[in-house]
Amino acid sequence: MATVKNAFYAQSGGVTAVINASACGVIETARQYPHEITNVYAGRNGIIGALTEDLIDTREESAADIASLRYTPSGAFGSCRFKLQGLEDSRVEYERLIEVFKAHNIAYFFYNGGGDSADTCHKVSQISAQMAYPIHAIHVPKTVDNDLPITDVCPGFGSVAKYIAVATREASFDVCSMAKTSTKIFVLEVMGRHAGWVAAAAGLAADEYNRIPLIILFPELELKQEDFMRKVEANVKEYGYCSIVVAEGAHGPAGKFLAEQGTHDAFGHAQLGGAAPVVANMIKAALGYKVHWAVADYLQRAARHIASKTDVEQAYALGKAAVEMAIAGDNAVMPTVRRISDEPYVWDIGKAKLEDVANVEKRLPKEFITADGFGITEACRRYLQPLIEGEDYPPYEKGLPKYVILKNKAVKKILNTTFKL
Amino acid sequence: MATVKNAFYAQSGGVTAVINASACGVIETARQYPHEITNVYAGRNGIIGALTEDLIDTREESAADIASLRYTPSGAFGSCRFKLQGLEDSRVEYERLIEVFKAHNIAYFFYNGGGDSADTCHKVSQISAQMAYPIHAIHVPKTVDNDLPITDVCPGFGSVAKYIAVATREASFDVCSMAKTSTKIFVLEVMGRHAGWVAAAAGLAADEYNRIPLIILFPELELKQEDFMRKVEANVKEYGYCSIVVAEGAHGPAGKFLAEQGTHDAFGHAQLGGAAPVVANMIKAALGYKVHWAVADYLQRAARHIASKTDVEQAYALGKAAVEMAIAGDNAVMPTVRRISDEPYVWDIGKAKLEDVANVEKRLPKEFITADGFGITEACRRYLQPLIEGEDYPPYEKGLPKYVILKNKAVKKILNTTFKL
Repeated sequence: MATVKNAFYAQSGGVTAVINASACGVIETARQYPHEITNVYAGRNGIIGALTEDLIDTREESAADIASLRYTPSGAFGSCRFKLQGLEDSRVEYERLIEVFKAHNIAYFFYNGGGDSADTCHKVSQISAQMAYPIHAIHVPKTVDNDLPITDVCPGFGSVAKYIAVATREASFDVCSMAKTSTKIFVLEVMGRHAGWVAAAAGLAADEYNRIPLIILFPELELKQEDFMRKVEANVKEYGYCSIVVAEGAHGPAGKFLAEQGTHDAFGHAQLGGAAPVVANMIKAALGYKVHWAVADYLQRAARHIASKTDVEQAYALGKAAVEMAIAGDNAVMPTVRRISDEPYVWDIGKAKLEDVANVEKRLPKEFITADGFGITEACRRYLQPLIEGEDYPPYEKGLPKYVILKNKAVKKILNTTFKL
Repeated sequence: MATVKNAFYAQSGGVTAVINASACGVIETARQYPHEITNVYAGRNGIIGALTEDLIDTREESAADIASLRYTPSGAFGSCRFKLQGLEDSRVEYERLIEVFKAHNIAYFFYNGGGDSADTCHKVSQISAQMAYPIHAIHVPKTVDNDLPITDVCPGFGSVAKYIAVATREASFDVCSMAKTSTKIFVLEVMGRHAGWVAAAAGLAADEYNRIPLIILFPELELKQEDFMRKVEANVKEYGYCSIVVAEGAHGPAGKFLAEQGTHDAFGHAQLGGAAPVVANMIKAALGYKVHWAVADYLQRAARHIASKTDVEQAYALGKAAVEMAIAGDNAVMPTVRRISDEPYVWDIGKAKLEDVANVEKRLPKEFITADGFGITEACRRYLQPLIEGEDYPPYEKGLPKYVILKNKAVKKILNTTFKL
């Protein structure tokens, strides 16, 4: 085997405002270890790039462009929704990965994604052992849903949380101004199929000074329509208006999603959207108030313009730590954020075994939701508050953020065999 | 009549990210002329505050709090949707206004709103002449729709334009990352019932460097569904994805709104919302692509966190100019923004007669829309570009913008008679 060792990096699943900051951490750190890592190859469109031997040569990118990844949202190399199954069901794919890695002298595998990706990363480390081709497989956490276990927070979440808290505060000021003669209710739909972390973040919009009457509909709880209407009406009577934040996964009895559209994504998850208009119509019909509603969808996770500085720093630090762990000989692990204290927020980097991460979904603890089911507790606020701290504005040109678009030049194929996905 | 002369200021219609910057300009400037204007009374919930003698004493607000209005979105004194009709139909209301103004020695009327408010302001100046109680009635322009005539731009629009351009660029980066295996289409619904200015602003997201395949659906044109689908498909074939921005007033044959909900606001305008999901379903059914959609609604006009610096400066300058015009003896006028050059953008303050402003709706010129009806021309870009220039971030505390909430203390009633709205 050649002494050159390359690294492979891929982005997986839904992208975020800061996944490229992790990519930046991986590539900039790898460039500091030229004797250990010759080059970082990125998968074009995630793991599909590895399977089809469509690798991107990141050495072609200037230091300035790689540095710009730190403030560029989305997945700079392309992401994908393509789930490898268990080793038995997807053996052909796993063997293909090893074959491509071998051909390109890839000894390090950095996979940047959520729970499904952690599972894939774990299996890559297993198959590499079985096939006696040693790979250091390191998972870099990412998910706006904040549903990975062990780590204090998943990069991507802090920035969505900040965006939703800011948007909720701003829209609440707006509806408050209009409420006397016009709109009394504002409904905002946010991401979160099963975990209410993003919805909970809206709770930060209200505080002692900003006494916003806010109702949060969590995906963890069954919506009790009568209680909900009572609370909406009480808020309008006391404050003149009411703001409502509804998670896309909010559901009624028997788990039926408010917004069930009957379609599914490539991972088999129900594809949702449209809980806000359902809630809006519900209120209009029951109480007769004029309602406005918004659906944030991609705007929330792409909003690098209002990213959390804490989130950006953690995303970068985890990418950096992944490379350092790989070089130190780690395998089948994920760097994590460890919280040392709430206030001031002090954190450092920890390490989790992938066997403890894969396929475990972290939900909102019960004690983070108020007794009535419609708000967040002080404990939740203590957890969330530091994650949205700090602004980290991108540079602007002609009134718009100047995000980088990489060259994304292909690495010459060595195998040059077709692989059917 | 006492020598003290007070001013009355009210906010009208849908609020914006910068209407309070105009309020700030009015109040700070009035405070510089203590011999001409003793106090500024604000209408609680707009003109309703005048009709019900519910006036807010702005002298109770500290200089620091008034200064904070410059970066606080929404209407700090409350706005309303309450349209006074013609002098004959609404004579009782107009006479009541004069009665309240007389009782509180109000000699200056500053009305901050859109086309309907300009009309009301004009009629107040007429009735004051008829009733021989002289009022200097000055309209301060405001509308995110940018549909007032004569002025180069309406405060509020530049910030919405910037928000929509930023959001379109960010979400386009996102969908581009996902397109290989998942979402290929992103649809964003923006404000604009009749005028496509806000939708047009999305066009700024794309440029030579950011080659975003973007389709804009303007309310000025009838949507030709077949042409639209052809263009969507062509974009996906060439770029792998397609971004679509649809105005809430987009319509098909016979002017039927895509999102007609059958409800109307207090001014008799159809209340819309939901064009995005209609477009999303249309594409999914015709082409089978996976689609994500967002509805920005209040988020776009409340987004002070990403306001245009140009917009903030103009909003303030127009409030200031209104006071200076009133003191100089003007009546039935509106200060305007006059464009002197595109690049560099040079502007100053002009003046329009209200009789030329009221009830004239400025639509997108034909030459601002590309021949195929789906994009903006260079002329449009030249017009829009300077309006989104510059950032003017609010201060932050604990990760969130620190917006001001005024005391809004009531002025003691003098008439103390009830008035039925």
